[in-house]
Amino acid sequence: MVHAEASTFAEGLSKKQVYEQVLGQAQALFDGQRNWVCNLANASSLLYHAYHSLPSPSNAVNWAGFYVLDPKNPKQLILGPFHGQVACQTIAIGRGVCGTAVEKKTTQLVEDVERFPGHIACDGASKSEVVVPIFQDGRVVAIIDVDCAELSGFTVEDQVALEHVAELIAKSCDF
Amino acid sequence: MVHAEASTFAEGLSKKQVYEQVLGQAQALFDGQRNWVCNLANASSLLYHAYHSLPSPSNAVNWAGFYVLDPKNPKQLILGPFHGQVACQTIAIGRGVCGTAVEKKTTQLVEDVERFPGHIACDGASKSEVVVPIFQDGRVVAIIDVDCAELSGFTVEDQVALEHVAELIAKSCDF
Repeated sequence: MVHAEASTFAEGLSKKQVYEQVLGQAQALFDGQRNWVCNLANASSLLYHAYHSLPSPSNAVNWAGFYVLDPKNPKQLILGPFHGQVACQTIAIGRGVCGTAVEKKTTQLVEDVERFPGHIACDGASKSEVVVPIFQDGRVVAIIDVDCAELSGFTVEDQVALEHVAELIAKSCDF
Repeated sequence: MVHAEASTFAEGLSKKQVYEQVLGQAQALFDGQRNWVCNLANASSLLYHAYHSLPSPSNAVNWAGFYVLDPKNPKQLILGPFHGQVACQTIAIGRGVCGTAVEKKTTQLVEDVERFPGHIACDGASKSEVVVPIFQDGRVVAIIDVDCAELSGFTVEDQVALEHVAELIAKSCDF
């Protein structure tokens, strides 16, 4: 049985250790369960609490969650499970940081969202962002989206770790 | 366009005013969008932030979210969008506070979860709970579940307000 403590992260861990715990706990949480809503709901909780256990700027993460391809309109993303303040329901492929990650099929690591062409300001508090595509059979089915209220909230270390989380989600969930 | 400020609640509002804002914002957020995952993701954010704007015991809410009927197994609920620590993936109909709300088709207002027969201790921190069924065509399709880390965290005022939220969700979402 799942226990809430799975998303409790000890103080003083390194970012590497925290991401290792995220991956390990996510793997345990997904075991025997392929429902994407259920798994992404728990994954957004894990990620949000992970960042908040780390020092600045990670503890300034103000949104951690997912968008998935809209089953009713393949030209847009639709909001999935997340932790943070309410968010845009849909995002056109190619628009903003999320839409660009889908169109270009690559992670977008954005140190200052104000300088990103076509940035969608869902939340004026967000200053930096990382968006990682989740691939199944070479196609983007969803994205991980994490926003930070500080500039340069994410580094290549975050990118690489979130790409591992995306791979785990891709092989663990039916979208 | 949705703005994150929709889930910002001013300090000093009464519980009645906060629930009015939840209902108003939820209605605005659901407008033109019937995807249940998208809508419940935003609703869990609204509810969580609403409780945290209120004085004790409401600000001790440690989980606010949803379970839905498992499309793969109608004898159980499966985790939907939420805010809080990671949670049980599935709950058998009839088990615990959530399963009982579905089986009895009535709201469960529980002042002390330890005294509820068959309580599922997903999170040892949760002391009280309210679970409200969401009906479509007389059938429970989902539940709102809110946990509080204090005893007697919820009153009939919460029950009635959450039943209004459940009605709005029922008429606004395709499950």
